[in-house]
Amino acid sequence: MSQNQTYNVAIVGATGAVGQQLLNTIESRNFPIKNLSLLSSKRSAGKAINFKGKEHTVEEATPESFEGVDVAFFSAGGSVSKALAPEAVKRGTVVIDNTSAFRMDKDVPLVVPEVNEAALHQHNGIIANPNCSTIQMVVALEPIRQKFGLTKVIVSTYQAVSGAGAQAVQEMYDETKAILEGRSFTPEILPVSSDEKHYQIAFNAIPQIDKFEENGYTFEEMKMINETKKIMGMPELEVAATCVRLPVEIGHSESVYIEIEESNRQAQELKQSLEGAAGVVVQDNPSEQLYPMPALAVGKNDVFVGRIRKDLDRDNGFHLWVVSDNLLKGAAWNSVQIAESLIKLELI
Amino acid sequence: MSQNQTYNVAIVGATGAVGQQLLNTIESRNFPIKNLSLLSSKRSAGKAINFKGKEHTVEEATPESFEGVDVAFFSAGGSVSKALAPEAVKRGTVVIDNTSAFRMDKDVPLVVPEVNEAALHQHNGIIANPNCSTIQMVVALEPIRQKFGLTKVIVSTYQAVSGAGAQAVQEMYDETKAILEGRSFTPEILPVSSDEKHYQIAFNAIPQIDKFEENGYTFEEMKMINETKKIMGMPELEVAATCVRLPVEIGHSESVYIEIEESNRQAQELKQSLEGAAGVVVQDNPSEQLYPMPALAVGKNDVFVGRIRKDLDRDNGFHLWVVSDNLLKGAAWNSVQIAESLIKLELI
Repeated sequence: MSQNQTYNVAIVGATGAVGQQLLNTIESRNFPIKNLSLLSSKRSAGKAINFKGKEHTVEEATPESFEGVDVAFFSAGGSVSKALAPEAVKRGTVVIDNTSAFRMDKDVPLVVPEVNEAALHQHNGIIANPNCSTIQMVVALEPIRQKFGLTKVIVSTYQAVSGAGAQAVQEMYDETKAILEGRSFTPEILPVSSDEKHYQIAFNAIPQIDKFEENGYTFEEMKMINETKKIMGMPELEVAATCVRLPVEIGHSESVYIEIEESNRQAQELKQSLEGAAGVVVQDNPSEQLYPMPALAVGKNDVFVGRIRKDLDRDNGFHLWVVSDNLLKGAAWNSVQIAESLIKLELI
Repeated sequence: MSQNQTYNVAIVGATGAVGQQLLNTIESRNFPIKNLSLLSSKRSAGKAINFKGKEHTVEEATPESFEGVDVAFFSAGGSVSKALAPEAVKRGTVVIDNTSAFRMDKDVPLVVPEVNEAALHQHNGIIANPNCSTIQMVVALEPIRQKFGLTKVIVSTYQAVSGAGAQAVQEMYDETKAILEGRSFTPEILPVSSDEKHYQIAFNAIPQIDKFEENGYTFEEMKMINETKKIMGMPELEVAATCVRLPVEIGHSESVYIEIEESNRQAQELKQSLEGAAGVVVQDNPSEQLYPMPALAVGKNDVFVGRIRKDLDRDNGFHLWVVSDNLLKGAAWNSVQIAESLIKLELI
């Protein structure tokens, strides 16, 4: 299909936080839309959403919703994706799925265009959008891997509450207000709405994102570990993660330690490999107190990298501080990028 | 001197946040005081402070203030310690200094009693209390080092605003309130009051604590690196640190990756070495969502350790999450512990 063509697009989960960001991104990118279907659960169906000055009524997502749809963005939870993505594919739709439902499937490409756009050629109808905290990290690691090789990654995250959904954000603000006013507040959402215990996030840090696996790691930590290896095509890469939720609305930060293959490299060389790399903005000048922070990354598509330092003990060790808007590069923007890549590669 | 003896005690910086915690701790420990002198800068002199039901007037600290003082706790900034600690020592006072003024001096023991109490025997009048983020980490590392050896430490911190002083705490709350009410707010204190630029801490994370050194690390990061080696008596220990300020009032958290000397050890064995270790409370049960958090550590003297996991790639790699009240074990409580050790060892 040519680049002047337009496409029938569906958004599943149009009323959610990522759905909203998808609409904003599609509009700001002037994505070539013929028809737009906004889909949701039965509960949210009937709502009106404005897109490019036109009211769209949100409809309940059913298998039949995908008849004639060229590309569908799924962002309504793993169970919806599992039920409806195969139905969409059956009807000829290419699905870009923002949930974890298919990410580790052998037959599903897990794509961050700056890193492994070519994997899109292997798609069988479904393309998975990686976990938000993984995406921003691999964007920062790929230029380094290309120039110097990469053998080990240890990441500690500083993740925003919006990654847990709109209700979690509301809880953070309500709770913060209650604490400032000296009122008591009983959290019911964070750290994980479906888990048993809930903890204060305001003026606190919670070392749990998603539920725990049997091995003592959380699912979020295992996602970062497994998805990084898959996206970078390096099953042998050593990856470890500790994931922590902070009282920040938007913007994930990551303290990343890496070991590269090459010896005798300096921080300045890694910095140069990142400057001008696709999707990366280097913010790194200690003498001017320039470094990335979540409050400055909100609303931007880029991955910001700073605090680039050589380890003082290991010649091949380096430290980075990586920040990005978890709702944009971590979700909506990466999904739209995948769709743009599919068009560019003539895969839809 | 015997354990039934009482001592003339001075607190320099009595009106500050740590000074207040020192008074609370001395009172709750029933420290054997004969006379108590509360000292401060000229600016704060004249204030009245209640201790054990008796009003004490704060006096300006001068060299003569230390005549007849047995032990003095200094917590009024590095320049005050540099000027007055030697004057106190000249007059026979043993100084426990909570600033960074003398920490790396060869002749000054840097002491965390759970780790290197014996170093007190080498004191020459001044004993340095380590940096808050260092203290809690070494308390968690020492039991592991004793049983399994220790070769490498990589820490990413999640530090509370109270570490930057009472004004910084006020700024965080004022700024949070302003943001909730949609008002603009211009920060003037954080991340470092004496540095040029100031940034929002509310709903943000700032990867700068203290000023930057020439090598791209902050002074806080270099303190953690150098002090850890000195306290543990291991100049060869590999230590790396990334220090980050969070919108949390009290309680530092640390994501710590370590490599031990021994092979074929399991997380359960490290956990056992920490259970019952001096100053440590293990909070580690993923199935019950039990892990340390700053909001639960406030007001407690212990160092809380959880999320103890074996690295999935390196047999000798492990991950820990370490939380403590930075004003207590990180400052006041460790200082009072040092004084108690001095009495126990008959060194004052």
